[in-house]
Amino acid sequence: GKLGNSSTLLGIRSVWNFCKEDRNRLLFSFKVGLAVVLVSLLILLQAPYDVFGSNIIWAIITVAIMFEYTVGATFNRGFNRALGSLLAGILAIGVAQLALLTGPVGEPIVIGISIFLVGSITTLMKQWPRLTPYEYGFRVILFTYCLIVVSGYRMGNPLRIAIDRLYSIAIGALVAVLVNVLVFPIWAGHQLHNDLVNAFNSIADSLQECVKKYLEDEEWKNIDQEVPLKAVMDEFPDEPAYKKCKATLNSSSKFDTLATSAKWEPPHGRFKQFFYPWTEYVKVGAVLRYCAYQVMALHGVLHSQIQAPYNLRITFKSEIQDVANQAAELMRSLGKDIDNMKQSIKISHLKNVHSTAEKLQRAIDTHSYLLTPTCETIGLSTTSSSNLDNLPSLSAELDSNGSKRSLNKQDSHGVDLVRKQQSRRQHSWPLREMDVFDDGRCVAIEFLPRMRKLESTAAMSLANFTSLLIEFVARLDYLVETVDELSRMAKFNEEH
Amino acid sequence: GKLGNSSTLLGIRSVWNFCKEDRNRLLFSFKVGLAVVLVSLLILLQAPYDVFGSNIIWAIITVAIMFEYTVGATFNRGFNRALGSLLAGILAIGVAQLALLTGPVGEPIVIGISIFLVGSITTLMKQWPRLTPYEYGFRVILFTYCLIVVSGYRMGNPLRIAIDRLYSIAIGALVAVLVNVLVFPIWAGHQLHNDLVNAFNSIADSLQECVKKYLEDEEWKNIDQEVPLKAVMDEFPDEPAYKKCKATLNSSSKFDTLATSAKWEPPHGRFKQFFYPWTEYVKVGAVLRYCAYQVMALHGVLHSQIQAPYNLRITFKSEIQDVANQAAELMRSLGKDIDNMKQSIKISHLKNVHSTAEKLQRAIDTHSYLLTPTCETIGLSTTSSSNLDNLPSLSAELDSNGSKRSLNKQDSHGVDLVRKQQSRRQHSWPLREMDVFDDGRCVAIEFLPRMRKLESTAAMSLANFTSLLIEFVARLDYLVETVDELSRMAKFNEEH
Repeated sequence: GKLGNSSTLLGIRSVWNFCKEDRNRLLFSFKVGLAVVLVSLLILLQAPYDVFGSNIIWAIITVAIMFEYTVGATFNRGFNRALGSLLAGILAIGVAQLALLTGPVGEPIVIGISIFLVGSITTLMKQWPRLTPYEYGFRVILFTYCLIVVSGYRMGNPLRIAIDRLYSIAIGALVAVLVNVLVFPIWAGHQLHNDLVNAFNSIADSLQECVKKYLEDEEWKNIDQEVPLKAVMDEFPDEPAYKKCKATLNSSSKFDTLATSAKWEPPHGRFKQFFYPWTEYVKVGAVLRYCAYQVMALHGVLHSQIQAPYNLRITFKSEIQDVANQAAELMRSLGKDIDNMKQSIKISHLKNVHSTAEKLQRAIDTHSYLLTPTCETIGLSTTSSSNLDNLPSLSAELDSNGSKRSLNKQDSHGVDLVRKQQSRRQHSWPLREMDVFDDGRCVAIEFLPRMRKLESTAAMSLANFTSLLIEFVARLDYLVETVDELSRMAKFNEEH
Repeated sequence: GKLGNSSTLLGIRSVWNFCKEDRNRLLFSFKVGLAVVLVSLLILLQAPYDVFGSNIIWAIITVAIMFEYTVGATFNRGFNRALGSLLAGILAIGVAQLALLTGPVGEPIVIGISIFLVGSITTLMKQWPRLTPYEYGFRVILFTYCLIVVSGYRMGNPLRIAIDRLYSIAIGALVAVLVNVLVFPIWAGHQLHNDLVNAFNSIADSLQECVKKYLEDEEWKNIDQEVPLKAVMDEFPDEPAYKKCKATLNSSSKFDTLATSAKWEPPHGRFKQFFYPWTEYVKVGAVLRYCAYQVMALHGVLHSQIQAPYNLRITFKSEIQDVANQAAELMRSLGKDIDNMKQSIKISHLKNVHSTAEKLQRAIDTHSYLLTPTCETIGLSTTSSSNLDNLPSLSAELDSNGSKRSLNKQDSHGVDLVRKQQSRRQHSWPLREMDVFDDGRCVAIEFLPRMRKLESTAAMSLANFTSLLIEFVARLDYLVETVDELSRMAKFNEEH
């Protein structure tokens, strides 16, 4: 009734969205349909059937098995199938002739032994690390060999069978390749190019998301609250960029596969160069992952149990934001340059990021007394909470004694704010005593202890966050270097 | 000649080592050989050939295509092939009957359209995320459908062809499954189990390797030297455990595949339970990766350009080592428990790790003035290097005024060492002035600027390292929780 109709509608809509999301999905489907129809026509129509005969059925299997999403993957699979069939055919004919010489009793024995050997040796070879990409080729060798040698034994004339099979496969492969290349080709190289550019953007997004969240004044961040296991498993559903960044970390094998396929593709579209350096894309991807690990570490501090108080975090707000935004901007601009195939040396851009990072370091350096509990706790222990204001004067005194540093007005205002805030929070600051552990006793799992962190070291987590951010900037150097290497090898246009 | 002989010998030796490394490789190869020989016998021997006829050739293809490394993967592929062939057979017979009704002109048209539709729809479906694991099944549907419907058109009687094909496939599948299960079975579940246990060990190794390197007195670590890009790309060849840890981070898809295969396997060996919770293994793997990210972050600090001086690092040596060793021990013991399928609540063990982590926090807390440049630079700026020794007395004075902290003898000795060392190093500590940047000028890529880090914040990198280590310990809580979940769901033996 009505319920059935609405759920059908819902299903149709989700299929529609699925296709609209990536037009290539639908295109690929139509191409497969087209290729199998074309090859079926060779049998369905009378004229080609008279020429090729029923052996042409192998062409259909070939199309169905070797038609892949991208042009490069189809070429790769076609090559595997063609070479595998050819080798198997030659071997089969040779062994069949040899078997014939051994007479009617020896023939099946020789054939049986040869099948065992071919099966074992191809399987052993395809496990060899350098040969695993040709796994499919070894499978083809195995079953083509068996088919030819066994059919030859029963029907005689293995040569005829081998040749029939080979030209059927050749026709199937030709149809598959032509349809794949001529009808809206989907290039692996193009996809690799786009995936790499997207990886730059997701890491930049994730970095900014992480920093933005860190500087947000959310209540929960001041509370001694931990991330539940569920959030860890669901990959922090409220942080969309985190998931994309993590996907980038898992993209290593995808990049490898695409690069392998792309190497099979002829020059096309914007990739006009023969021997285009697709392996460089994989290298840039590796350095990108090296940067992404740092974002994961920042994310770890963001969700760490004990956080620096909000007022301390915003003391360095503008410096932290500057570094994050400039680093993200540099990443995006690197991605954009690759996307536009433009070669531009990023020296000035990189230097700007460096200088903001150094500014942040300087700020931390100048206010480092805020980041350690020493001064605070000294203050708390030597003075009562009412004369906490002695502390600024103490540090001012130390400062004046020949120190070259000076706080600018805005900063010292921020510092005062922090102090005020902290004196209000003071009741939550005393060191907790260590528990006496009840070793050995078995407690139900619900009472699994959680690690406590000393709140007195809370401020240090800010230093931690900024150090990781600065290390992220340091890793950008490698990224600029590899992107530059890529743009030179791929002969990107130089910008003038 | 001789050269040829020796390189042949070398080749044979490396093949020998390759097989010895993992006995299953050779076993798998022999099993494939055995399976294809068995199925070939159905044709080579007269008696079964008389029964089955030449259609049995499809059995050979089935064996060659569906014989996979593990039992579960073979079952999975067999299921795909069987269900795909069955669906395709039913569909083909239905369409063929329908096409017959349309007369000799309409028949090839109906068949052609149906082939296009089947090709497009199966291809679209296999791209749907939830159906991608059955990709092979959709391929089977496509080519089986084409084969039956096209052969039926040319040779008549599609029902006969469909049935012949189905029982050939059934025989091939039966041989493949029997050989795979009965002759030295290789279980996906067993492999998943071992891989998980190994992942625990590699992360523990990597953690200890990282900490050991951090506390080593190597000259280069005090020098302003950076890791070359080559070392980043080669994954730090002098740190074997790092590579294994990184491999664990990339193991997500491998674990997924193995778990999918394992679900197809009947209870076997030590996994006697029906519906054994293989998905829990994947979850433990995810939490393991969550921990491994922290090791990557530690590794990042280890190779960061500016390092805390060696003498400062060893001040906390014993505390850092205790945390790392106990955490690694806990990880190994969790891995060992899984390996032995033992259920033991790790409360006391976890609490020990927590307490050493808290001890480290306390040590950092007590000596936090060492970790920020403030005190040092205040010292340097207010006093000449000769009366630097005023500083301890100052802090001692502050300490005595009601502070509950006290340095134990060993610690204060360590601190003195650091001070002495630092007064000697003093000439290298002044803040470097910021460069005037030559913006806009194009410099050759060899002169790519590297980010400088303020040496004055060097000591902070130690705080950073310890914070990351402590966060690693905090993540162990999640790990213990998921391992406990696994051991309950898998009904591991409780230890008494």
